[in-house]
Amino acid sequence: MEKINVAEKLAMFGDHWHPRIVGELNGQHVKLVKFAGEFVWHRHDDADEMFFVVAGRFRMELRDRAIPLEAGEFFIVPRGVEHRPVADEEVHVMLYEPAGTVNTGDAGGALTASADWI
Amino acid sequence: MEKINVAEKLAMFGDHWHPRIVGELNGQHVKLVKFAGEFVWHRHDDADEMFFVVAGRFRMELRDRAIPLEAGEFFIVPRGVEHRPVADEEVHVMLYEPAGTVNTGDAGGALTASADWI
Repeated sequence: MEKINVAEKLAMFGDHWHPRIVGELNGQHVKLVKFAGEFVWHRHDDADEMFFVVAGRFRMELRDRAIPLEAGEFFIVPRGVEHRPVADEEVHVMLYEPAGTVNTGDAGGALTASADWI
Repeated sequence: MEKINVAEKLAMFGDHWHPRIVGELNGQHVKLVKFAGEFVWHRHDDADEMFFVVAGRFRMELRDRAIPLEAGEFFIVPRGVEHRPVADEEVHVMLYEPAGTVNTGDAGGALTASADWI
């Protein structure tokens, strides 16, 4: 039961596409992650997923459009909707999603990462 | 399925202690609220509640201590824990909590507010 400083937590890691857990409430996890480049197309059949941009910008690609997002904006990807985050430059993102959600969803593959507490 | 700009949503209202809903996922609501002054002591028996400071600062008073919080920091109040937010100056906060959570919890009273979508 301590407060969390988001910038301090972000300074604890540098790798991309590897979410870290920084909070838990009501069966949901709060995670921090750094994106750079293109992720894999995937979906989560049982989880809505919120992306809040802390610093920088990226775009969330859906199959029919792309949503540009910058610091202070968020987007909720509903369960079942295919998506792919793409970041031309490094971006820092806070995620809010059910505990146990895997970053690559149904796609799996090399970018699949464990989500560890920091 | 549109992105949300937090600052634009915050500009849509000026009253204090009256949360607005700006997102829903996995049975949880994302809310924005402006605090100023002292709230009432209360608890939520069935809801953990996350307070993320968007702009400004406030302190979360618990019965045995107070947690100072500023922009870029968050604190999760576990279910059942009595708390009271106090803001010496206006502060803008993003909340994550289960849909249906009432702002004054068990206390009720004059500061109880509906949470409307904006």
